[in-house]
Parts: sequence; C-alpha cells; structure tokens
Amino acid sequence: MTTTPAVPRGLAGVVVTDTALGDVRGREGFYHYRQYSAIELAQTRGFEDVWYLMVHGELPDRAAAAADFAARTAALRTLPAEVREALPAIARAGAVSGPLAGLRTALSLLGASAGFRPVYDIGAEQRREDALAACAAVPTILTALHRLGQGLSPVEPREDLPHAANYLYMLTGSEPEPEHARAVEQYLISTVDHGFNASTFTARVVASTGADLAACLVAAVGALSGPLHGGAPSRALDTLDAIGTPDRIDGWIREQVLSGRRIMGFGHPVYRTEDPRSRMLKSLAQGFGGPLVDFAVEVERQVEAILAELKPGRELHTNVEFYAGVVMELCGLPRAMFTPTFSAARVIGWSANILEQAEDSKIIRPAARYVGAPPPQPVPAP
Amino acid sequence: MTTTPAVPRGLAGVVVTDTALGDVRGREGFYHYRQYSAIELAQTRGFEDVWYLMVHGELPDRAAAAADFAARTAALRTLPAEVREALPAIARAGAVSGPLAGLRTALSLLGASAGFRPVYDIGAEQRREDALAACAAVPTILTALHRLGQGLSPVEPREDLPHAANYLYMLTGSEPEPEHARAVEQYLISTVDHGFNASTFTARVVASTGADLAACLVAAVGALSGPLHGGAPSRALDTLDAIGTPDRIDGWIREQVLSGRRIMGFGHPVYRTEDPRSRMLKSLAQGFGGPLVDFAVEVERQVEAILAELKPGRELHTNVEFYAGVVMELCGLPRAMFTPTFSAARVIGWSANILEQAEDSKIIRPAARYVGAPPPQPVPAP
Repeated sequence: MTTTPAVPRGLAGVVVTDTALGDVRGREGFYHYRQYSAIELAQTRGFEDVWYLMVHGELPDRAAAAADFAARTAALRTLPAEVREALPAIARAGAVSGPLAGLRTALSLLGASAGFRPVYDIGAEQRREDALAACAAVPTILTALHRLGQGLSPVEPREDLPHAANYLYMLTGSEPEPEHARAVEQYLISTVDHGFNASTFTARVVASTGADLAACLVAAVGALSGPLHGGAPSRALDTLDAIGTPDRIDGWIREQVLSGRRIMGFGHPVYRTEDPRSRMLKSLAQGFGGPLVDFAVEVERQVEAILAELKPGRELHTNVEFYAGVVMELCGLPRAMFTPTFSAARVIGWSANILEQAEDSKIIRPAARYVGAPPPQPVPAP
Repeated sequence: MTTTPAVPRGLAGVVVTDTALGDVRGREGFYHYRQYSAIELAQTRGFEDVWYLMVHGELPDRAAAAADFAARTAALRTLPAEVREALPAIARAGAVSGPLAGLRTALSLLGASAGFRPVYDIGAEQRREDALAACAAVPTILTALHRLGQGLSPVEPREDLPHAANYLYMLTGSEPEPEHARAVEQYLISTVDHGFNASTFTARVVASTGADLAACLVAAVGALSGPLHGGAPSRALDTLDAIGTPDRIDGWIREQVLSGRRIMGFGHPVYRTEDPRSRMLKSLAQGFGGPLVDFAVEVERQVEAILAELKPGRELHTNVEFYAGVVMELCGLPRAMFTPTFSAARVIGWSANILEQAEDSKIIRPAARYVGAPPPQPVPAP
C-alpha cells in the first residue's frame, strides 16, 4: 500500500508535469510562450510563426522556413471529403449543444478519416504532421459549420491568404480589411496558450494513455465547452448591451455590485494586476475607435471607480473577455463565433501540449477513495 | 503562492475524489460496485439491474421498477435519424483509427443531436436521462459500424430482447442462443466498472468543467483507445493462435520468458492474486467446453508451471483478457468487436462516474512547472 499524499481539492496547485511551453505569472501580469512574452509575439509576429514556435520549440530561423511552414499548413486547410460531406448533418445536430459540440464531432471524424494512430505508436515527426493537419482544419470546420447553420454554403479556404485573413475570408466570403485581419491575428496569437488550464490538462491526460491526436483534441474541446472552464467573450459584450447607454452605467454597476453579482469581463483567478491580454486588446480597440469603444472604455473606468468606492482594497480589472469581445465585434465576427474563434487559437496550444506529453511515457492516473457502504453485502435476490 | 505538494509521477496513488461507486482490492482479488461484489452481481443479476444500481445507487427494489427501467432503456436503443444517417461516413473513415474512433464520433454527434446541455446547467434527473440515452445507444452504434465496415446493413435494435441478447442480435441479425447471451451478459456486467482507471478519470476531469455528457464520454472513449490504458482482449487470443498446438506450448512460453517478453493475458498491475474476472470467465468457458477451452486451460497451466520454475516467487496469473477472449470467441463475437464490447459495458461505469462528479462543483485542474529557458527574452525580428 503506497501512502496517499494529502492534496488540495481538485488538485489545485499540484504539479502534474514539467513543461517548456510557457507559463502565467499572475502577480506580474505576464505570460509567455516558451521564452518569449506572448504579447510581444502577438505584436511583432504572424500567427504561423507562433504556431511554429509552439510546435518546433523555436521561431523559424529563416524566412524560407517560415514561408515553407505557412505553405504546408495552408495546404492542410482543405477538409477530407468525408468530413466535408458530414458537415451538414453535424451542423443540423448542433442547435442546442452549440458550435464546440460540432467541432468535437468533426475533429473526431477528421482524425479517423486521416488515419491518425496512437501517439505512442508513431514517431515525433508523424505526431507533428497529425497535429498540423488537425489544427489547420479547425478554422475550416468552424466557419463551415457556422455558415451551414445560417443556411449558407461553406467557403473553401484560400491558400494564398495568411491564417487569420483566411479565417475571416472563410467566415464572410470576402477578403477582410487588412487591419481587421491583423487585429484578429493578434487576438489569436494571444490566445494560443495560457498556462495549465483545464482543457490543456485534459488533452495531456488523454495523450498520456497514448491515444491518437484527435482523441486528445476532442477531449480538450469537450473540457473547453464546460461552463467552469471559463472564457466566454460574448458575455462581456452582452453586459455592454444590457447597460445600454452611458447614463445608465453608474446605476447598473452599483446595483450589480450591491446585489453581489459578478460583472462579466472583470476579474481573473490568476492575474492580480491588469490582464496583459486585456491591455493589448484595449489598445487594438482604441486604434479602431468609435462609439462602442468609447462606451467600453467608459464602463471600464466607472466599474473601477465604483469598486474602489464600494469595495476598497479589492483590485478588479478587465479580463481578456472584455476587450476581446469588442475587438471581435469591430472586426465583423458574429458573437456565436467568439468562443469558436478562441478554440481555433487554443487548439495550437493543446496540440503543443500533446506533443510534449507524448515524449513522456507515464500515464496520468490518480486514485479515488471509496466512501460508500462497506462491501461485500449479499446481493438480494431479484 | 500556495505550496506545492510533492506527488508521485502521473499522480499515482494521489486521491483526487471520493466515490461511492466501487473499488478494487488488489490483494484480496476482489472488486465491487457500490456495496456488492461485482462477480456476485454478474452471476445473479441481469445487465439492466446492474446498470440501474450504478446510476441510481441501489438495485431496483421491485420487479416493476426493474421492468420499467429495462423498457425505458430498450426504447432508447434506436438512434436519432441524424446519427443513423452519418454512420456510413463514420464507418468509411474508420479503417485505420479503429472502432473506438468511430464510437467517439458517433457519440459526439448523438449528444449534439439529442441536445445535451452542460451537466452544471441541468438537474440530476436530466443528467440521468442523458446518460441513459448515451449508454443505450452505444451497442447500436458499435454493431452498426461493424456491420457497415463488413459491407452489411445495420440491424435495427429489438426492444423485446434484454440488453446483451439484443447486442448479439444487432451484431449477427439472428437471435442468439440463450447461453451465449447470458455469458456475454455476465462479461458485460463484470466490465461495467473497475476502480479508478484512466478513462474513468478522464470522464471525471471533463465532467468537472461542467461540460455535457457526450463531451465527457467522448473523452473517456479517447482515453480507452490509448495503448497504455490496457485491456485488449483480442491480444490473448492472438497469443493462443501464435502458439498453435499443445505440443508447442512449452517451447513457445519458455522462449517468451527467457527473452523477457510479456505474455499477453497474464499479469495485472493491481491484482496480486487471481483476477476475479478471470476466474468467472474461465468457469463460463469451461461450461461451454471444446478444444479452444481445453487449449487455453492447458496454456494457463503450463505458463504458471514454467514461471514457477524460471521465475520462482513471482506470482503471475491470467488477467481478464485471457478468458474474456475465449468466452467472446465461443459466443460468436468477432475479434474486432472485443474492445468495442468492453466499451459498451464500461460506458455505464463512465456515466455513473460523470453523474457522481457532477454533484461536485470543484474543477479538477492541477498545475504544471515551467522548466524552459527563462523569459522574457526579446523576440527576434522576423
């Protein structure tokens, strides 16, 4: 009998793995991918370079390597025929369970269709190929499911557009404004990974059994769809809608705070300072300007002032949801696509974690403690 | 900053949850569902009663309750039209990734098609309904995918047959011999749950985010498909084939042992005695009799004798795989259906675990330790 270490509920703070992929430093308001600031990467690099960094462990060292990687992933945007043909049925089934349930089904089918094999039965090179194929297909799947749900035909991917621009193109059918494509690209880069969240952990648990890439990613999509996972950028925008006009901000916020309700888009379990993603997204939003941005900035100002008055000493800042919703709205993304867009970025982080986990050979499998009635009791006759 | 408890690799032995569902006592060669011996349940009860026990916490207390539950689950065997229509495409895609990948896709689609909602957003009653719908559909999905893969049409479920008999009926298209149906039923009952294995843990991790039943089950199916999860009853039968004839047993086994190779169907990470499932399945096999059974018993006898001679002091017994394969073969199940059949039983255990986890409100989310190059380093220009 091994001794059982006493651990916090939900394994909070228990280190289950080492990682070289990145971390979040809540007190400093800082997070990183490998050795680089994630925000600096978002501000200075394209999506494909950061994808390369996560998968290969370093930024592409030559323009040729970057262009080659971009071309390879662009070619993987087209879905296998079996997946494409199943999308209408998947879209029809998705009305209640939502777009992540559709992504879950389509990614599962894609993995089988591409013949993914257990990560422990293939080499690192093939694992990376499988990961690229899955990640490259996600934007195509998500935009096709959204359009089918709207009664529109899917738009085939274009290989000549960068990742983010192609994403917006597949969604709307027209080439996006460069500043919209770049803002969405920066949002996507900043969302690729964020420490050891619940969906990332889930992906690694399944990877630790040696299951195939799709099995791991599908499990992660499932975890992301859980309400406790957090991250629903449309909620903050719904709050702005609920407030309505600048003159109603003060009353609305005071009522929320005094009745003890949460204000969506504010507060984060890890950051004790401003969320670095929020700062970047606010700056992007202000670059666009307009009444929605002015309104959001005013709501932020008043929330912070009212909280300082009513709950002195309690620091509460906007989290990533608040300005992410504003930026996505300004770039023409419908609210139903906010969480799917998040998943289109995070799938890169999941797959990098799966590739890292696959280098380990130890299954992640804790224990449970039986607390029911003592066995064996005789089984009563039927 | 919270302190980090030092824990074993892979969280081995770390208690992550309490459970009233059951446990395995490796030293005693005993495992139980709730307060009852799983083997005694398999020997004295029908599958639906044990299913009821896992989901409701007690055996049905009246014949009427048992009959009502059986009728309700039988009615749920028929697949929604969207799932049925997608099965040919799912079967076509499944050649390499295998039947569990097909189950993963079909269960995901079923959940969306049935409009499953996050377990934290619905009540216990609805969660149980969702779990029954998913579990009742699994045998229909698995047999349909298998038949489609063979170029045959799926066989519609029959509501007038018990669970196990209907499973064999859907697979072959003809009503099974009662003794075959009962043997498979006992195997299924003995496979419903088995302590806190990797797929069960995975199901609970996803449930702890509050995701819907299908998200949790699909993740568990993925974990089960991992080679480290263990449990591939066809491997033991492949070993019997590889040995071939009784006169070759001694030489074959000695060569395996002396070259340090594992003998499939022998040894278990938890049981230090005979695997109680193996004992029951051997007795079932011997009830059927015939050359395969005689051969298997002789292989078991010689393996134990040779190990006692070559590795004295090391106890090694048949595990569940060894006679499970023999029993399934005798009951007419093709080898490709051995692991799917396992999953058709285990989905009951997963769903009971999900229902139990959903009563908790704490997300399961441990931490990772960053061990890469220290950030922030300046991002090089592209």
